[in-house]
Amino acid sequence: MQDLLSKLIKKNLPFTKDGNVANYIPELDKAKKDALGICIIDNEGNQYCAGDCDTKFTVQSISKIVTLMLAILDNGEEYVFSKVGMEPTGDPFNSIRKLETSRRKKPYNPMINAGAIAVCSMIKGSDAREKFHRLLDFFRLISEDETLDVNYKIYCGESETGNRNRSMGYFLKGEGIIEGDVEDALTVYFKQCSIEVTAYTIAKIGLFLANNGKLSTGEQVVTPRIATIVKTLMVTCGTYDSSGEVAVRVGIPCKSGVGGGVVAVVPGRLGIGVYGPSLDPRGNSIAGLHVLEDLSNELKLSIF
Amino acid sequence: MQDLLSKLIKKNLPFTKDGNVANYIPELDKAKKDALGICIIDNEGNQYCAGDCDTKFTVQSISKIVTLMLAILDNGEEYVFSKVGMEPTGDPFNSIRKLETSRRKKPYNPMINAGAIAVCSMIKGSDAREKFHRLLDFFRLISEDETLDVNYKIYCGESETGNRNRSMGYFLKGEGIIEGDVEDALTVYFKQCSIEVTAYTIAKIGLFLANNGKLSTGEQVVTPRIATIVKTLMVTCGTYDSSGEVAVRVGIPCKSGVGGGVVAVVPGRLGIGVYGPSLDPRGNSIAGLHVLEDLSNELKLSIF
Amino acid sequence: MQDLLSKLIKKNLPFTKDGNVANYIPELDKAKKDALGICIIDNEGNQYCAGDCDTKFTVQSISKIVTLMLAILDNGEEYVFSKVGMEPTGDPFNSIRKLETSRRKKPYNPMINAGAIAVCSMIKGSDAREKFHRLLDFFRLISEDETLDVNYKIYCGESETGNRNRSMGYFLKGEGIIEGDVEDALTVYFKQCSIEVTAYTIAKIGLFLANNGKLSTGEQVVTPRIATIVKTLMVTCGTYDSSGEVAVRVGIPCKSGVGGGVVAVVPGRLGIGVYGPSLDPRGNSIAGLHVLEDLSNELKLSIF
Amino acid sequence: MQDLLSKLIKKNLPFTKDGNVANYIPELDKAKKDALGICIIDNEGNQYCAGDCDTKFTVQSISKIVTLMLAILDNGEEYVFSKVGMEPTGDPFNSIRKLETSRRKKPYNPMINAGAIAVCSMIKGSDAREKFHRLLDFFRLISEDETLDVNYKIYCGESETGNRNRSMGYFLKGEGIIEGDVEDALTVYFKQCSIEVTAYTIAKIGLFLANNGKLSTGEQVVTPRIATIVKTLMVTCGTYDSSGEVAVRVGIPCKSGVGGGVVAVVPGRLGIGVYGPSLDPRGNSIAGLHVLEDLSNELKLSIF
Repeated sequence: MQDLLSKLIKKNLPFTKDGNVANYIPELDKAKKDALGICIIDNEGNQYCAGDCDTKFTVQSISKIVTLMLAILDNGEEYVFSKVGMEPTGDPFNSIRKLETSRRKKPYNPMINAGAIAVCSMIKGSDAREKFHRLLDFFRLISEDETLDVNYKIYCGESETGNRNRSMGYFLKGEGIIEGDVEDALTVYFKQCSIEVTAYTIAKIGLFLANNGKLSTGEQVVTPRIATIVKTLMVTCGTYDSSGEVAVRVGIPCKSGVGGGVVAVVPGRLGIGVYGPSLDPRGNSIAGLHVLEDLSNELKLSIF
Repeated sequence: MQDLLSKLIKKNLPFTKDGNVANYIPELDKAKKDALGICIIDNEGNQYCAGDCDTKFTVQSISKIVTLMLAILDNGEEYVFSKVGMEPTGDPFNSIRKLETSRRKKPYNPMINAGAIAVCSMIKGSDAREKFHRLLDFFRLISEDETLDVNYKIYCGESETGNRNRSMGYFLKGEGIIEGDVEDALTVYFKQCSIEVTAYTIAKIGLFLANNGKLSTGEQVVTPRIATIVKTLMVTCGTYDSSGEVAVRVGIPCKSGVGGGVVAVVPGRLGIGVYGPSLDPRGNSIAGLHVLEDLSNELKLSIF
Repeated sequence: MQDLLSKLIKKNLPFTKDGNVANYIPELDKAKKDALGICIIDNEGNQYCAGDCDTKFTVQSISKIVTLMLAILDNGEEYVFSKVGMEPTGDPFNSIRKLETSRRKKPYNPMINAGAIAVCSMIKGSDAREKFHRLLDFFRLISEDETLDVNYKIYCGESETGNRNRSMGYFLKGEGIIEGDVEDALTVYFKQCSIEVTAYTIAKIGLFLANNGKLSTGEQVVTPRIATIVKTLMVTCGTYDSSGEVAVRVGIPCKSGVGGGVVAVVPGRLGIGVYGPSLDPRGNSIAGLHVLEDLSNELKLSIF
Repeated sequence: MQDLLSKLIKKNLPFTKDGNVANYIPELDKAKKDALGICIIDNEGNQYCAGDCDTKFTVQSISKIVTLMLAILDNGEEYVFSKVGMEPTGDPFNSIRKLETSRRKKPYNPMINAGAIAVCSMIKGSDAREKFHRLLDFFRLISEDETLDVNYKIYCGESETGNRNRSMGYFLKGEGIIEGDVEDALTVYFKQCSIEVTAYTIAKIGLFLANNGKLSTGEQVVTPRIATIVKTLMVTCGTYDSSGEVAVRVGIPCKSGVGGGVVAVVPGRLGIGVYGPSLDPRGNSIAGLHVLEDLSNELKLSIF
């Protein structure tokens, strides 16, 4: 396995040249464009890493799957999906048009920004501080890493440049999808995007889902049902408007973030974390997806 | 003329039953649904009034034509129309979709909410207070009424419920259309909508435009070019997504507001103010437009 | 006047370099890109011409105003506008999206392709041949030119390449807007677009509208009401998604065609025909609109 | 298993009351609204049936997965997906808007009508007759049923009422997505939709996919890669704009048709055919999906 990973990193490194590092805030722009790393953990606890697997990066949209789990724990499946749908959109992740043009007056799914902001508004807590604190605790719990924290420089950048997200927040408030304070929901959203992780951290989150919501200690933190919902949404909506293609090419649940991370899950078997900050035009790690595609083909991982 | 106006008010009063008073904020809801009045001023200063022409109401979207004039005075025609287009949209006044789907990355025109908010951001001033103060002064100047002021109860309601407008403001900020502070622009916008007027006040504004930007004193406040731009936009975009139909039915520049007012202009001749708070589904005074249609037919006012 | 026209042609000729001749069918591509001409007829019959005013070109979308008049004569205003709206769209002339996304299940206006195809379906006649024959006769009548005819080479090109128009036709059939045969409507549409005219021909049509539907003989062919409807729609929708801007810049009713023609109307006074096949990105004669803008400024023609 | 199926049919029969039989052509309207049946075949050839599993119905959109396989065999994966994408749309199956508004000038996926019509245009053959004959042969081959044929009464109805599909065909022709004759592609499309099957027939097709493209004789007809592509697209796009929700609720590849059929695939294990012509608002068998959901829960079939 170790050799395979090293081989795949080397083979796919050239793809990093074809993409670009996210640059909408200056701090993100500092990522090394040719970084590429992978970390795999199996359900016996064995770890395999190759490439830049210790580099820290912000979790960005990968946080959406964590928040969704906590929102369901806090509010129940029925409430959450009365406010946010389960359908892929075919539109870019920051698109607002469907909020207006569709008959369903709710974001299509929790993986697009509009849906994720709505989900953030559902986290229990008396104010943004408590809401986010609870979320961060949950994040630490399921990644089994007490040291996880926000990169505040990036958080400030996200908040200052996040006008499109703020626009969606107020739209959702106007439609009654967000019931509480909009700015609280946005604060939670921008902070969760700014949590710093490594490929190892997200591999742990992947393993948690692979094990249907169990920690390595055997403790069941979320129900298998919740884990299944998340994994399913990762397939249909996890990599923005490339989700359909990624499902064909890679064939396992994946969730990407513009920080360069991709978490992937082989149900019952593996948690996988990939890091490669050079992105394709839709916001997915360009070389990272190639690594996952090769890995899936080599090890016959497709669930289809 | 007096008799004609009384006759037209009486004839069209029943149409008030077919519409509804705006109710998105409680204060607006208190308007008398069957109110209907008209005031006409000719360029010799003669006034003719009928019906509820002394009732106060908030100017709402009619303010958009006033702010546009001041924004052009403050910034020049070229700058203003580099940020806001001149095209009708065919969409509802609070629609956001075209901001995302169109190639032009600017609001289509200054009469839809998105465009008007952008125009508000262009009013000169060090903060929202000064910006609005300058706008209110300009409003008083061209309506020749020093007593004009904001209805603060309605302003607060507008601001508290204005999530869709806030959403558009942040969208425009994200696209670089709004250069200054979004909340400042929104404050100016919500306040301008909440200025209280009567049919007489808006007839004065209409007359100002009919006289190509001159006060009754003969003072030229804006250039004829600016007055022409405003009158033209009133025809193509002045009554929301009914503008095309109103152009056919009424045939003179009109601008409506959800407070129930409609200002109309007969170039070189008349300023007309109508009040009728019962609205059609697109937000125009339902009986008010009927009065204007009849008046246009009786007096052959169509410019086409 | 003659001198003014020559001067304006000469002054604006350089703008032809900034545009492109329509090339979606080979025959159109043969137009001389730097051609530019104008013809004005006043209501005493005086004619003033300058530049390429004898060059033949296909009338294209200018035909839409003629067909609309005949459709209203054939069916009445109420029926026609139950099937086609009066609102500008802000979208390109060949756009199909609003047919699906808008609540009104009809084309927004008769000047976009979808609306014009619907209008073509309303011309009375037992088959496409008779329908078009009636339309051609009406065309000849109001332009007072018995020699007008179709350029069949262009007609065949239009029909062969007209897949987008055919797509809209079938969409409208599916929605029940087109009641008769779709291919008949499309045949009439493609043929009307292929009628050959000169700047003089369309100036005559403009004069007919300026005179509220009267021929030079004094014969009233359509009611003033119909002429007014057409002139109003020319202002709000006559130059595609530049209509708002043209209304500001030129200020009189205009209708353009991708053959390079623009017809303009000064109510009660002048019919104007311009020819300049070099088009701006939205399909309007680029130099032609500049000539009209200058002419309007020089002679104070704006109706606003 | 037999008992389980009978129990699930009985339990879910009441849901048939909540939907409606397709009625856009009269013949479809004759289906019994309360019909419900299921047929399961495992990879050892055992069959289990319950309810109305012998009733004939038209395959409708389920045919899209068969045609896609033949189109890839005929043209290769690369060509097919250069013309049609792999992304879910979030829009109704007969929506046309994304063809215009998206940057990708191709249908989003082969499961929406636009994509399926494009796929039909790729089937090799000198004319519509030969194209469809080849497709029907392929259909018979993979369902191992030489008697399969078109219901010509329904085919004629499809063709006569299929204006929206025809509209999309011409749109795609205009964009160069359809290279051959549009009417040929539409003929193939309307005919494939009108092939008559039973729950058993489609269970056989499901089993063919479950076995990665092998017949019961062991003959490999399409590559495992092609079978995987089809199964993946069934999950992301197989049940129209309910695909995301069905993925969560049922968790196995499904493809529905408005004739009332749903084919489902448990990779490596089972082919499932369900029939229930009462449809939900998005066009899926309302009780049929409930049966599949229960079955998936009882037998732990989810692939996630």
